[in-house]
Amino acid sequence: MSKDRIRRPSLLSKVVSADQAASLIHDGMTVGMSGFTRAGEAKAVPLALAARNAAHPIKITLLTGASLGNNIDKLLTEAGVLARRLPFQSDATLRNAINQGDVLFIDQHLSETVEFLRSHQMKPVDVAIIEAVAITEDGGIVPTTSVGNSASFALSAKQIIVELNSSHAAELEGLHDIYIPGKRPLRDSIPVVASNSRIGTHAIPVNPDNIAAIVLTDKFDSPASLAAPDSETIAIAAHLTDFLSNEVKQGRLSNSLNPLQAGIGNIANSVLYGLVHSPFEQLTMYSEVLQDSTVALLDSGKLVFASGASMTLSQPVADAFFPHIAKYKDRLVLRPQEISNHPEIIRRLGIIAINTALECDIYGNVNSTHVNGTHMMNGIGGSGDFARNAYMAIFVAKSTAKDGAISTVVPMVTHCDHNEHDVDILVTEHGLADLRALAPRERAKIVINNCVDPAYRDQALDYHNRALARGGQTPHVLEEAFSWHQQRAKTGSMRLS
Amino acid sequence: MSKDRIRRPSLLSKVVSADQAASLIHDGMTVGMSGFTRAGEAKAVPLALAARNAAHPIKITLLTGASLGNNIDKLLTEAGVLARRLPFQSDATLRNAINQGDVLFIDQHLSETVEFLRSHQMKPVDVAIIEAVAITEDGGIVPTTSVGNSASFALSAKQIIVELNSSHAAELEGLHDIYIPGKRPLRDSIPVVASNSRIGTHAIPVNPDNIAAIVLTDKFDSPASLAAPDSETIAIAAHLTDFLSNEVKQGRLSNSLNPLQAGIGNIANSVLYGLVHSPFEQLTMYSEVLQDSTVALLDSGKLVFASGASMTLSQPVADAFFPHIAKYKDRLVLRPQEISNHPEIIRRLGIIAINTALECDIYGNVNSTHVNGTHMMNGIGGSGDFARNAYMAIFVAKSTAKDGAISTVVPMVTHCDHNEHDVDILVTEHGLADLRALAPRERAKIVINNCVDPAYRDQALDYHNRALARGGQTPHVLEEAFSWHQQRAKTGSMRLS
Repeated sequence: MSKDRIRRPSLLSKVVSADQAASLIHDGMTVGMSGFTRAGEAKAVPLALAARNAAHPIKITLLTGASLGNNIDKLLTEAGVLARRLPFQSDATLRNAINQGDVLFIDQHLSETVEFLRSHQMKPVDVAIIEAVAITEDGGIVPTTSVGNSASFALSAKQIIVELNSSHAAELEGLHDIYIPGKRPLRDSIPVVASNSRIGTHAIPVNPDNIAAIVLTDKFDSPASLAAPDSETIAIAAHLTDFLSNEVKQGRLSNSLNPLQAGIGNIANSVLYGLVHSPFEQLTMYSEVLQDSTVALLDSGKLVFASGASMTLSQPVADAFFPHIAKYKDRLVLRPQEISNHPEIIRRLGIIAINTALECDIYGNVNSTHVNGTHMMNGIGGSGDFARNAYMAIFVAKSTAKDGAISTVVPMVTHCDHNEHDVDILVTEHGLADLRALAPRERAKIVINNCVDPAYRDQALDYHNRALARGGQTPHVLEEAFSWHQQRAKTGSMRLS
Repeated sequence: MSKDRIRRPSLLSKVVSADQAASLIHDGMTVGMSGFTRAGEAKAVPLALAARNAAHPIKITLLTGASLGNNIDKLLTEAGVLARRLPFQSDATLRNAINQGDVLFIDQHLSETVEFLRSHQMKPVDVAIIEAVAITEDGGIVPTTSVGNSASFALSAKQIIVELNSSHAAELEGLHDIYIPGKRPLRDSIPVVASNSRIGTHAIPVNPDNIAAIVLTDKFDSPASLAAPDSETIAIAAHLTDFLSNEVKQGRLSNSLNPLQAGIGNIANSVLYGLVHSPFEQLTMYSEVLQDSTVALLDSGKLVFASGASMTLSQPVADAFFPHIAKYKDRLVLRPQEISNHPEIIRRLGIIAINTALECDIYGNVNSTHVNGTHMMNGIGGSGDFARNAYMAIFVAKSTAKDGAISTVVPMVTHCDHNEHDVDILVTEHGLADLRALAPRERAKIVINNCVDPAYRDQALDYHNRALARGGQTPHVLEEAFSWHQQRAKTGSMRLS
C-alpha cells in the first residue's frame, strides 16, 4: 500500500518498524498523539513504547485529543510510561492511577490545549504521533477518523511519526477541514458561519522534513460500546423533544432548531436517536464526537449536515458506514477540536448543547467529572466549551444511579464544572426543568418537582425548606450540604430514612 | 439646552416631567434601564417611580447593564417596586432584600442578558429608560458614560423614555461604538480585531416613533468610592508585574502584553495603577469598566487605547477628565457590554483577564459571588465571560478579611463561579500561584505555599495532607470541606486552634 498512500516518493525511505519509531521517544519528552474518543489514535508506536519500557524505562507527558481506543491508555499506564496525561481520558486503569496520584492528570477544556501550546504556556510537543490515511504529494498528513489536536501537534512538533493505517478507507481523504487560528493578539476571525463551512485544507500541511518515521499499521479503531436506548433514556429524549417542539411553537426556534451538539455517551446518543422520529426537519450538528445517532439522523434525512472532531461508531454501524463514506462526504466534516469546540463559533452559531451530568444540584449546578468531589471519572471534555458559550445549555442525567442508592440530584454538587450561570435546562427521566432567567429559589422548586426521583423528593424538599429558613440567594444548610454523600458512605445509600 | 441636544425637532414635543414619564410604567412590566457600574443610569424616572409607588403600587422586573449609582437600587427597593432584578447589583439595601427572598435576583454573565432577550428566552422589555447626551437628527440616542445593555434595550422596547442629562459633556458624543450582532443561527463574525476597532455607529439607531417621552435632567453620576492602594494591593500588583515581566522575558508575551481586562474594585484598580511604573509599553485594554487607573495609564503614556462598556471614576479624576474628554476620544471607546464581554472577541484578542475573588480554594476554584455559599454579594458580572475565554485568567484577592478572622483561601469554595479549568493564576499579597497546566495535587502545594496567609498555612497543609491520604484527582475530606466556615460561625474566626 505504501506507494498509494505515501504520495511523496522521498518519504518512502522513512518507513520503519514501530519499535524503531518508538526509539525516537526519550525520557521526559512531551508526546502529542492523535486520537479522540477512541477514534483515530496511533495504534502501533504506543504499544512498542510500552513494550520497550521494561528495558528502557522512560516517563513521558502524553497529550491527545481526548480518550483513546485499543486499550492504549491502559497499556501505557501498566507499563509505567505515563508521568502526565492531558486533556481527557476514559480508561479504568488510567483512572485508578490518576486517583492514586501515580499519573498526574490535567483536565482541560478540549478547545484550550492547543491554545496553551501555541502561546508556549505549556511545554512544547517533542514528538507527534499521528495516525493517517495517506501522505500527500506535498507531505501533508491526511488524518483518519478523528482530527482532535493532531494538526497542531504535528505542526508544532520537532519530529513527527506517522502511522499509516490501511484499515481505514482511502475515501476518508477529503472529509477533513484543517484550519489553525493565528497567533494572538493579532488573530483574525475564524470564518465558520455554518456547520457546513469549509475553511481549511484536506491535509495537515506539515514540513515533510519533520516527518521522522512512517509506520505501517492495519489495526481497526475500537468500536464504541453504546448501550441501546432504555426506558429512562427514551423518557429523557421524549421530554427534550417535547420541550424543543414547544420552543418551535412559541417562535423561539425554527423547525430546524439551531445547530446541535451532543456529548459522548449513551444518554446524549439516545436523545439524538429520539430526533429521528421528531417533527423537526433540516437539522444540523456542530458537535464534537459524531456517534451512531448521527448516522441514523443522516440516513433518516432529518440531518442535513454534521460537523465534528471525530467519529466513534459501534461495530455494526461502522461496518455499514465506512465502506460507503463517499456517499456521506458532502454532508460531513471533521475539524480540529479547537474549531469544533471554539467559543467564537459556538456563540455565533447559537448552538443547542446537550451534555451529560454526573451529578447536579437543586440549584442547577453540574458536576461532570468528580465522584464524591474527589475521584476523577473521565474529565470535563468539551462540555465547558459548549455550555458557557451556547445558545442553550442542556444537561441530561438519569435521576438515580447504583439501583437507586445514589440520587444524581443532590443538595449541593461536590464539584462544580458548570454553574448556575451556565445551566439552562436539566432533564432526567422524570421530567425537564427549564431554568432560564430564574433565581436560584425558583430553580430549586422546579428541579425538585420535575427532576428528582420520587424516592428522594421529600428529603430534597426538606433540605431546601430548612435552607430557605436561613435565607440567602442560594439557600443552603452548609453543614449538611454533603450529608447525602456521607450517608451513602456510611450506609451504602443516599436515602436518609 | 433642549434644541442643542434634541436635534430632531419633531421630538421636542415629547419633553415631559419625570412623573409623567413614570406613568408609562405599569404593574408587571419589564423595564430595561441604562446604567453600568454607577455610570450613565437613568436618574429621574426611577425616582419618580419610587415616589409614586405609595399611591400606585406596582412591581416590575428591572434589567440594567450592571450596578447603578445615585442610590437608585436602594430607593426602588425601599419603595417596594422591584419584583425581579438582573443581571448585577451592588447595593446594600437591595442585597439584603435579595438575600431575604423579597427581590428575586437573576445573576447572569453580563454578555448574555441581551442574547436571552434577542432570542425571546426571557420576557421582552416593555419600556426602556436610557440616559442620553443627545438625540441626533435621525432620532438616534447618544449614550452617556456607559453603554451597557442600553442599545439592545432601546432597540427592542415597545416604548423608550430618554433622560437627556445636561451634566454630561456634549463632547461625549462620538465616544461610543454601537454594534448589535445578528440573530442566530445566521450571525456573521463580529469584526473587532483589536481594542481600537470601531465597527458600529455613534448613536443607538432607534425608530424615533418609539421615543415616548423625554425627560430633562442634570444630576451627576455617583463617583466611584475607590480606596487608595494599600500595602497589600501594592504587593499584589508587584507580584503580578514581576510575573508578567517574566512572561515577556521568556518570550511568551511581547512588552505590550496582550489586551488587558480588569474587574471593578480596589484590588484590580490598584493592579492597573502598578503598571504605570512597569517596564511595559504600548499597552491596550479591552475591558468592561474603565476606572481611575485607566486614566492614569492613558496620562502616563503607557496605555495607547482603552475599550470598555462604561467609565466609573472617582470625583477628583472625573473632574479632571470629563472637561477634557475631547483630547482622550481617539484613545477610548465605549461599547455595548455584549461586545466588551463577547466570548468571540475575548478569545480572539487573547485577553489577560484580572478579576477579584471573594474566596478561592487550594485547588484554584473561585467564588466571586456568595458569602458562605449562600448570601449574594454583588453578582458574577463579567468575570465568567472573561475567565472562560481569556488567554490567561488571573484572580486576585487579599489573603484574609475581617482582620484575619477569614482566610479567603479555603479547603473548598462554598460556591464555585470559576473552576479549576478556568483559573490560571492566583495572587494574594503573599505571592503568586502559577497554576497553568498543573494537576490539582500540584496546584494545592503552590497555592498553600504562595498565597495562603501564614496564620492559616498549617491548617491548610494539614487538611490537604489528610485529604491526600484518601486519594483522588482533587483530594478532599468531604465532611470537613466547609469546616473553616463552620468554625467562623461558631467562634468568629476560621482559625481552628
